[in-house]
Amino acid sequence: MKRILMCAFALIFMGICAHAQQAKYIFLFIGDGMAMPQISSAEVYAGALAGSDVDIKKLTFTRFPNAGIMTTYDAGSFITDSASAGTAMASGYKTLSGIINMDPAKRVKYTPITYDMKKKGYKIGIISSVSLDHATPASFYAAVESRGDMYNIAVQLAKSGFDYFAGGGFVKEKGKDGQPDIYSVFKDNGYKVVNSNADFKKLKGSKLIMINEKLQDAKSMSYEVDRKADDLSLAEHTKKAIEILDNSKGFFLMVEGGKIDWACHANDAAAAIHDVISLDKAVQEAVAFYNKHPNDTVIIVTGDHETGGMTLGFAGTQYATFFDKVASQKGSFIRFNDEILTPYKKSAAAGGLLSDLDSQIKNYFGFAVSELSSDEQAQVQLAFKRSMGGELENTTDQMLFLLFGGYEPLTVKLTQIMNQRAGIGWTSYAHTGVPIPVFAIGKGGQHFTGYYDNTDIYKYLAALAGVETAGKKVALSR
Amino acid sequence: MKRILMCAFALIFMGICAHAQQAKYIFLFIGDGMAMPQISSAEVYAGALAGSDVDIKKLTFTRFPNAGIMTTYDAGSFITDSASAGTAMASGYKTLSGIINMDPAKRVKYTPITYDMKKKGYKIGIISSVSLDHATPASFYAAVESRGDMYNIAVQLAKSGFDYFAGGGFVKEKGKDGQPDIYSVFKDNGYKVVNSNADFKKLKGSKLIMINEKLQDAKSMSYEVDRKADDLSLAEHTKKAIEILDNSKGFFLMVEGGKIDWACHANDAAAAIHDVISLDKAVQEAVAFYNKHPNDTVIIVTGDHETGGMTLGFAGTQYATFFDKVASQKGSFIRFNDEILTPYKKSAAAGGLLSDLDSQIKNYFGFAVSELSSDEQAQVQLAFKRSMGGELENTTDQMLFLLFGGYEPLTVKLTQIMNQRAGIGWTSYAHTGVPIPVFAIGKGGQHFTGYYDNTDIYKYLAALAGVETAGKKVALSR
Repeated sequence: MKRILMCAFALIFMGICAHAQQAKYIFLFIGDGMAMPQISSAEVYAGALAGSDVDIKKLTFTRFPNAGIMTTYDAGSFITDSASAGTAMASGYKTLSGIINMDPAKRVKYTPITYDMKKKGYKIGIISSVSLDHATPASFYAAVESRGDMYNIAVQLAKSGFDYFAGGGFVKEKGKDGQPDIYSVFKDNGYKVVNSNADFKKLKGSKLIMINEKLQDAKSMSYEVDRKADDLSLAEHTKKAIEILDNSKGFFLMVEGGKIDWACHANDAAAAIHDVISLDKAVQEAVAFYNKHPNDTVIIVTGDHETGGMTLGFAGTQYATFFDKVASQKGSFIRFNDEILTPYKKSAAAGGLLSDLDSQIKNYFGFAVSELSSDEQAQVQLAFKRSMGGELENTTDQMLFLLFGGYEPLTVKLTQIMNQRAGIGWTSYAHTGVPIPVFAIGKGGQHFTGYYDNTDIYKYLAALAGVETAGKKVALSR
Repeated sequence: MKRILMCAFALIFMGICAHAQQAKYIFLFIGDGMAMPQISSAEVYAGALAGSDVDIKKLTFTRFPNAGIMTTYDAGSFITDSASAGTAMASGYKTLSGIINMDPAKRVKYTPITYDMKKKGYKIGIISSVSLDHATPASFYAAVESRGDMYNIAVQLAKSGFDYFAGGGFVKEKGKDGQPDIYSVFKDNGYKVVNSNADFKKLKGSKLIMINEKLQDAKSMSYEVDRKADDLSLAEHTKKAIEILDNSKGFFLMVEGGKIDWACHANDAAAAIHDVISLDKAVQEAVAFYNKHPNDTVIIVTGDHETGGMTLGFAGTQYATFFDKVASQKGSFIRFNDEILTPYKKSAAAGGLLSDLDSQIKNYFGFAVSELSSDEQAQVQLAFKRSMGGELENTTDQMLFLLFGGYEPLTVKLTQIMNQRAGIGWTSYAHTGVPIPVFAIGKGGQHFTGYYDNTDIYKYLAALAGVETAGKKVALSR
């Protein structure tokens, strides 16, 4: 009886504590395209580097005490895109793919939670490894009918008044006729744009946009596997953001690992895995901050959807995996294109032979085409022919898409075959609908346990920030 | 300050409460081969039946308040089998694939937790939709060097003294020379074997083995999609088991949905989805019991590994899914073989034409071969040729395996193509290594939150049952 009474008291007190669960420092890390297969692949990879595919090495964020699973379907499809997924998490509404923070009819604008946080005194920081006008970062500061309207997205960034943006650059630097250059819009709105490593070191103040000195494809930061020592990493950006945002009223920092998605679209496991690890290193910077402020900090790590239909097992390898093969890959699919295949195509034109590339393929991917099975060699030959501009006999457009997904045929075939030999399968060049894990530590982190929806991320963030929206207090229903 | 003190008290009281977290009634449901894709596919399917692929309809067990994620690698591979996975959950040790409750060197026997529970007074029940001597159920009562040693497994069942076994039958009914028929072993050890629906209705007592009157492949219960009205379902078995096991000292009931795995090995999404739903209906029986005894009952639902590399998205359908197509499939791959393809092969021999089967295929799978794309038709023609005994030109054994995985070529190609058109991909005919979700409700259910290992399932079960093993109390470390 005494114990029952004590337990009852505990439950009552827990209720009181729950109301005090507001967090002063809120970190939200989003791995774009990062679901359980992507996370787990990084853990097997880390284990393989240590000598065994059997003993996985956990990432930092998968050691967090709280884990949950969330559904990601949007208003139009079981399979979301980053715009509707970002909208769900940033403003709590489901919308159609392609739309950012507006309803499916494109009539109503939703206010991302960051604006309400800003009003409450939180400083706001947004980091992405892809361009800052891309769908996921944009979901945290903009509302537009189409994610493709990147100029208007950047204009809204300029008007956000948010404190710090960092990572990639801007895709649409110029607007339509008569619209000013986006950098002059930033300047007119009081933003300082920095893009040198020297200036990064002494960065101070607010209303800052820090763009990496060197960018890779589509104004993004380099894939981690391609990153040079003097390219700023996601971890360096996160560390700097914490310095800049840290203040007595608290801050919200969203960090996106945006190229996990791009690598998975291209079925390049090595590039994806290194970018998951890069995101994890950024998380470590947040954990270092959390360790100094454990009672005021919450760190949430999740993805927005799965990309590629990645599986950790393949028909040809059955019950075995060989992740050491992934470690042999020297760079991303895009760097192989840029540095090897594209120059070769220019020099060799239609007269090229796959064997010309054999030593470069071996050096880059860890295997020579001649070491592959006859079936695999035939696939690579076919892809080479297509990459060199050749038509493939008896092949429909649909078959071509299934084979190469619009990517450089030789490159995507090489990564697919290497992945298959490692025991990694892919079923798509698009997103898939499998629910996504969420990991959390710190103040209120327990809210992120259970199986819920991506719109609940918004609700829990609102509760953690003590934010009231749409005229009513958002209560944690769980 | 007052609030801080109250919170501190709450934490202390919570600690005291944790020690009182033993559960009198413990349910463990295992979907063999059931990971997040399998679970989610059943939820999209249920949504599609209600008219939309967008709004998923949650299963009963995914509404449980606690969700966690667990790793499944075994002592020899990142990708486990059901024997090593069952061992991990039942006795807390990692071993090699194929071994049940023994160490990798096959020298030490581990005691499944059920024996310790039995000593504490719990009644023990084990239900499986596959044969009762199969790896997963066996992990909860036997210790053998090889899962293939099914005769010896059944002998250990006879000697277990456990209260109730139900579902499928026994694969190895006869032992080696001189060994008695397994049914006489059951009888000699005091077990009553029942296999009629009439006797099922009046079943009472203990030491009972209830085998379905009609069995399908390998002494298993029928796939749910093939189940006739008078075939006992997993839910009916669960309800009966609760009646038989219910007593003042409590019980442990393990229920396996074993054919989710078999369906996924064969890349048959419809059969898998119906078996996930069948498992969920069995869970509903446990929930009905939980509702009567909410303070004494815990229900845990998980899988042992993923099978098939199932993805909810496919290159050809990109961002769309069409789960209504899955609903058109009339039966499992095995019933198509048994009732349509095998009889046709016998009658037509080498002279058969795929068009002979067109109306039957349309009736069974919901599409005619002539409605497929030219690429798909070519694949089906190739598979038909192979099913009819034809050799395929320019095809290596490895390619044949990748194409058909050892299954009836025509049937596996038809389910794969239908699945792809629904937006479901497969990468393997074996298991994969992606971590598995765990759902729990009731007394101590919160232990199953977080990201942990399948051996932790044993630890949490031990804590919930108050069982001490290997001379030391197993404490919940989380």
